[in-house]
Amino acid sequence: MVRACVHYRDGRKVADLPLTAISDVLERPDDGFVWVALHEPDAELLHGVQEEFGLHPLAVEDALKAHQRPKMETYGEVLFLVLHTAQSHDCRIALGETHIFLGPRYLLTVRHGASLPYASARERSEQHPELLRLGGPAFGLYAVLDYAVDNYFPIIEQHRAALEALEKDLFDGDFKRDNVRRLYELKRDLTRLRLSISPLGDMLQHLTRSPTPLIDEAMLPYLRDVFDHVVRVNEAIDTMREMLGAALSVNLALATAQQGEVVKRLAGWAALLAVPTLIASWYGMNFEHMPELGGTYSYFILMGVVALIAGLLFRVLRRARWI
Amino acid sequence: MVRACVHYRDGRKVADLPLTAISDVLERPDDGFVWVALHEPDAELLHGVQEEFGLHPLAVEDALKAHQRPKMETYGEVLFLVLHTAQSHDCRIALGETHIFLGPRYLLTVRHGASLPYASARERSEQHPELLRLGGPAFGLYAVLDYAVDNYFPIIEQHRAALEALEKDLFDGDFKRDNVRRLYELKRDLTRLRLSISPLGDMLQHLTRSPTPLIDEAMLPYLRDVFDHVVRVNEAIDTMREMLGAALSVNLALATAQQGEVVKRLAGWAALLAVPTLIASWYGMNFEHMPELGGTYSYFILMGVVALIAGLLFRVLRRARWI
Amino acid sequence: MVRACVHYRDGRKVADLPLTAISDVLERPDDGFVWVALHEPDAELLHGVQEEFGLHPLAVEDALKAHQRPKMETYGEVLFLVLHTAQSHDCRIALGETHIFLGPRYLLTVRHGASLPYASARERSEQHPELLRLGGPAFGLYAVLDYAVDNYFPIIEQHRAALEALEKDLFDGDFKRDNVRRLYELKRDLTRLRLSISPLGDMLQHLTRSPTPLIDEAMLPYLRDVFDHVVRVNEAIDTMREMLGAALSVNLALATAQQGEVVKRLAGWAALLAVPTLIASWYGMNFEHMPELGGTYSYFILMGVVALIAGLLFRVLRRARWI
Amino acid sequence: MVRACVHYRDGRKVADLPLTAISDVLERPDDGFVWVALHEPDAELLHGVQEEFGLHPLAVEDALKAHQRPKMETYGEVLFLVLHTAQSHDCRIALGETHIFLGPRYLLTVRHGASLPYASARERSEQHPELLRLGGPAFGLYAVLDYAVDNYFPIIEQHRAALEALEKDLFDGDFKRDNVRRLYELKRDLTRLRLSISPLGDMLQHLTRSPTPLIDEAMLPYLRDVFDHVVRVNEAIDTMREMLGAALSVNLALATAQQGEVVKRLAGWAALLAVPTLIASWYGMNFEHMPELGGTYSYFILMGVVALIAGLLFRVLRRARWI
Amino acid sequence: MVRACVHYRDGRKVADLPLTAISDVLERPDDGFVWVALHEPDAELLHGVQEEFGLHPLAVEDALKAHQRPKMETYGEVLFLVLHTAQSHDCRIALGETHIFLGPRYLLTVRHGASLPYASARERSEQHPELLRLGGPAFGLYAVLDYAVDNYFPIIEQHRAALEALEKDLFDGDFKRDNVRRLYELKRDLTRLRLSISPLGDMLQHLTRSPTPLIDEAMLPYLRDVFDHVVRVNEAIDTMREMLGAALSVNLALATAQQGEVVKRLAGWAALLAVPTLIASWYGMNFEHMPELGGTYSYFILMGVVALIAGLLFRVLRRARWI
Repeated sequence: MVRACVHYRDGRKVADLPLTAISDVLERPDDGFVWVALHEPDAELLHGVQEEFGLHPLAVEDALKAHQRPKMETYGEVLFLVLHTAQSHDCRIALGETHIFLGPRYLLTVRHGASLPYASARERSEQHPELLRLGGPAFGLYAVLDYAVDNYFPIIEQHRAALEALEKDLFDGDFKRDNVRRLYELKRDLTRLRLSISPLGDMLQHLTRSPTPLIDEAMLPYLRDVFDHVVRVNEAIDTMREMLGAALSVNLALATAQQGEVVKRLAGWAALLAVPTLIASWYGMNFEHMPELGGTYSYFILMGVVALIAGLLFRVLRRARWI
Repeated sequence: MVRACVHYRDGRKVADLPLTAISDVLERPDDGFVWVALHEPDAELLHGVQEEFGLHPLAVEDALKAHQRPKMETYGEVLFLVLHTAQSHDCRIALGETHIFLGPRYLLTVRHGASLPYASARERSEQHPELLRLGGPAFGLYAVLDYAVDNYFPIIEQHRAALEALEKDLFDGDFKRDNVRRLYELKRDLTRLRLSISPLGDMLQHLTRSPTPLIDEAMLPYLRDVFDHVVRVNEAIDTMREMLGAALSVNLALATAQQGEVVKRLAGWAALLAVPTLIASWYGMNFEHMPELGGTYSYFILMGVVALIAGLLFRVLRRARWI
Repeated sequence: MVRACVHYRDGRKVADLPLTAISDVLERPDDGFVWVALHEPDAELLHGVQEEFGLHPLAVEDALKAHQRPKMETYGEVLFLVLHTAQSHDCRIALGETHIFLGPRYLLTVRHGASLPYASARERSEQHPELLRLGGPAFGLYAVLDYAVDNYFPIIEQHRAALEALEKDLFDGDFKRDNVRRLYELKRDLTRLRLSISPLGDMLQHLTRSPTPLIDEAMLPYLRDVFDHVVRVNEAIDTMREMLGAALSVNLALATAQQGEVVKRLAGWAALLAVPTLIASWYGMNFEHMPELGGTYSYFILMGVVALIAGLLFRVLRRARWI
Repeated sequence: MVRACVHYRDGRKVADLPLTAISDVLERPDDGFVWVALHEPDAELLHGVQEEFGLHPLAVEDALKAHQRPKMETYGEVLFLVLHTAQSHDCRIALGETHIFLGPRYLLTVRHGASLPYASARERSEQHPELLRLGGPAFGLYAVLDYAVDNYFPIIEQHRAALEALEKDLFDGDFKRDNVRRLYELKRDLTRLRLSISPLGDMLQHLTRSPTPLIDEAMLPYLRDVFDHVVRVNEAIDTMREMLGAALSVNLALATAQQGEVVKRLAGWAALLAVPTLIASWYGMNFEHMPELGGTYSYFILMGVVALIAGLLFRVLRRARWI
Repeated sequence: MVRACVHYRDGRKVADLPLTAISDVLERPDDGFVWVALHEPDAELLHGVQEEFGLHPLAVEDALKAHQRPKMETYGEVLFLVLHTAQSHDCRIALGETHIFLGPRYLLTVRHGASLPYASARERSEQHPELLRLGGPAFGLYAVLDYAVDNYFPIIEQHRAALEALEKDLFDGDFKRDNVRRLYELKRDLTRLRLSISPLGDMLQHLTRSPTPLIDEAMLPYLRDVFDHVVRVNEAIDTMREMLGAALSVNLALATAQQGEVVKRLAGWAALLAVPTLIASWYGMNFEHMPELGGTYSYFILMGVVALIAGLLFRVLRRARWI
């Protein structure tokens, strides 16, 4: 589906174009640039666009299939980028792919799966006509990348909150089987996120270090700014992954310790009960001559003795925190 | 065994050749290229081919023994590659080796052990005569590499499914001795796979970064595409290996926790039974004067008292989840 | 808030300037340099300063928002640095940010969040007029960086002391649930600290290896000295992180071992009590013909036998350290 | 001890030389090269050889002491290599050292400790006179390195077999204290092996990437072939080390699980016995009025009831796999 | 304190100098070099030396404070090195610092804390006058570095012995709380040692790869030899650290297993005693009609039955290794 097909000149929007008018614009020298945004295009639409811009077949094949890892490729004078976008639906991460073609006078974005539309990135670009004039489609590329990366931050925040809740649960309450599952799932999510975002850092670093003629030097600080955001996302993910590992270890230690507590309690109460039981068994013996059994108050004395022993034992065990 | 020996000119198949006719073709300048496919050749056949193409003895020795690690070597103007192929037979991974000689005007593949024949790679090449004309044997190389790498994907999928089944089992059911074994075997499989595929990534990166005259520049995006697939396989393997490590930890934590549950139960029921046992022992004592023993309803009162204590204890333990 | 706006010439303070007089000074060639220190400036103040110095809008945006990671960026002939500062309030780490603009003839610091004022860094610079004349604003930069890094040392010391106290606790006393929590929190703190300080090391290494005209060569040993302090902080953090990991493992081993001790005790005392209980039950049997029951001294003999058995058992178990 | 001192010309052995004749050969230009093999020479012999060839005193000191790590050093136009050799005696690894001096027209090997003699490497060289002529002493170097590396393979195989036996034992049988010890010793062995072989990889990579005039370019594929074998040994070691780590974890999980099983059994049987014990104690009470005790068949009825309860309990526990 | 101040010419000692005569020697061209050794100098002495040699203030500040990490710095034509020295006092590692200034015609060493005096390094240098003449102060530097590094070896040996004793203890005896503490302390020691020695490796590698005019090329093999010793120390430390990690894991597994053994024993003996206890309780019941109680030999028959059951149970449990 065509989401937008706009002609910009001198940093300002000139007109919405039909797709077929693109090549006319591109043929006129110095007539600004074209920004086309597609959303899950079918093969027909994509091949139409391919002809309009003269795109490399391999890149178009990628953009159609949309199961690529984030990468950057140069086809002749065209820069082709694949990036992963992330969104959170009901606490589950949904990933999408965006394929970007940056030509000398055009920017083409192809959006697949979970991602927000880039309309707001276009709007933001249009608010800076001087930069849009200066950078041309490269400024549009910056706006799209910046927008895509910024969409990772709320997801990171969500996971950080989830991790903090887990930590609280871990240290405050009992061992819960479910906590382990949540730790494991957090780890899986973060591993997926890292695979999505970290290649983008390499791409941006490469772009800013060995610049292409497609990207005006004045745009480099902007791309480095996006790079910085990517690094922040990466660092947040890595920190969380590390803390998750520690949390798993801690969890095991606490489970072991808790089990130790249970055994202690078991041992303590067993001891407390075993002594009177032994005494009771003792005086259940049927010897004919057991002098203790005869006296009138023997039984009551025994009760006192047992109560005393049990009481002392209770105090000893309580002090040793076995009960 | 000779699987194919085909003469291509201008991107189209000219004829199937006998092996001995190869040198005739190669002597005629500008007469296309030859694509030879062997399957587990014996020494005699291989030496015949060696003479036909003039191959380096070390490479031929490798191609005969077929216990090489994936590698790339340049002998004069000939590029020699060893790659590992993988197939899944009955949930077990079987590895094979393919040795490839890429000359200026020939492509020779030698297949050993588990791998699918490259006939379909040849067919796919023939469907793109323009690229086959442009790239010559290098396009054939691309087709073979692409095919070999793509054969890893179903194996990766299989292992991912196995891992997910294990995860489900881990969190849903009891600790099973067998799960640990399966985790261990998965880890071993993935370690083997990684050793097979990851050197191929280095080889492709080297090929695309420092290109040889054997490979036309127009072929580089195709090789980079294969490289990208290799990276995807690698990332999938690494992710699974990492999750396997976490699963092992999780498993240990769950085993510890489960044992703690058992101990709790043991302790709970022991406590529940110990109290009436103590009381029963108590009134089994043979003191002459035990006033409680005399009354007509003493026994029934005691029954009530014991039932009450046991009932209360049961509620307390149940609430504390010890029973 | 403007903390300082000072005009230096030939390494000596000339005058405190109003902000608006800065451009006058900068217009006069060879008239020393200006050092401006701001503390959490509002947008208006910052934009005033931006106009005075002609700063890049991206950098100013960063300096206003203050949620950057440590980084270094060159905008034209101006060097822009973000560094994190750390302070310890009530045993909790509070992080702040300082944004530094180093121009050919000015130094501008913008301080956010937890950090000590740089007044003492300025004072120290003024005590070395010869270096301040030689290095100009670059010497001021050194003084600020040196001061900021040195403020990490007491925090590191605090954590080292906390770790040592924990180690002592770990090996001397019983397993404490709270120790695990403290280990975990230490790890989290150190991870945050590392993210704050370690990029500064990269920045300083880059500055000293590929020097800019902004920084006189004579200043490089001073910057390398700061780099060295950063490395020391980093090494201290890494060492502690590693020991924390070991402490977690050790903790788990000790918890397991302690539990083993408890089980041993439980088993030992259970055995000690089980034998007399068995004997007592035995002579509680109601067989008509039990010759042992009849004799006058039978009971006393039994008492002796039981005491003997219990005594022997006690010695055996004590030797085996089960009691 | 002098093992061999041979004069080669045009790839063929000319004569066995006395040591003192070496300098005569080397003085005649273009008169082939000399291959000297020593085995644990004493200081006197080594200094004689040093004078004959004019070796660097540091290298000779190394060759005498033989406690070097694998390394490569260039002294003037002489290449000096130290490599570690490995042999397996009674399942224990014995390491040796070989010091190699490669001059423009000589090859000197000094063998210490556990290693096989290089006679077979010399024989193999002599079977390829064309390569020996082409490569001169560098081909001899190749033969020695190839032979030394190939001697690692049987050791690797032995360890792999040991690991597989351990794995089988781990999953099939009970936890054995001895298995842990064997895992630990395997890890130690592999760590030692890795330190012996892996620097050789770096040396070979360096040799083949920045070639010296001592080594003819035609020899490089041969050295790369040895490099490849080293990488295979390294990969095998790394894989085993990784699996050993996993085996240790698995072992712990299985030990924990096995302990859990024991506790379950303990709990199960304790429960099974506790119920009849309670009942028996119950009817051992001495209440005067216990109606159940009176009837003629009471005892038999009780026996039936207890048998029934025990039977039911047995079935329940068996189903839950607690017995 | 001044330990030595010696004037060397043509590789031989000329005279002991007073400090104030140094500048006279240095003013005369081609008059050899001066070697000064200080031990924990006070500020006054150090500033005297600073004036004599014209040292950089930052380096002198370092040499006075002596809390530097190992590093290398070039101040003009002077090379400044900080290295850590290690000594073992009563099984505890004591670290010292040595600061070295290498000028074109002087060598100045400043020793702090635990280290042996460098007198023996000077003596060894004087035994090689030809090298001392050739290398000048750089040969002295070699002698000092070599001596400092060689002092690490006995410490490494000590730790290796401690680790081996621990390993033996681990596998032979019971779990000891103290072993865990020793493992932990070994790890801490080795971490400290690694921080002390490993930067020296980087320094030496840098010195030998990008040589300075201060160091004659003929000295490079000697420095590389020291580098090699550093690498050996590093490898020994890394190996031990790795084995320590494995030992911790092994320890945990053994602790778990040992606990399992205890539980098994507990369960076994409990079972052995529980059966006769049940039987005894059984015949303690007060039913009026219990035919077994009546016969004259009933009691003896029961004794036989109980002995038989206990005996059988004992054999079964012993075979299953539960007792």
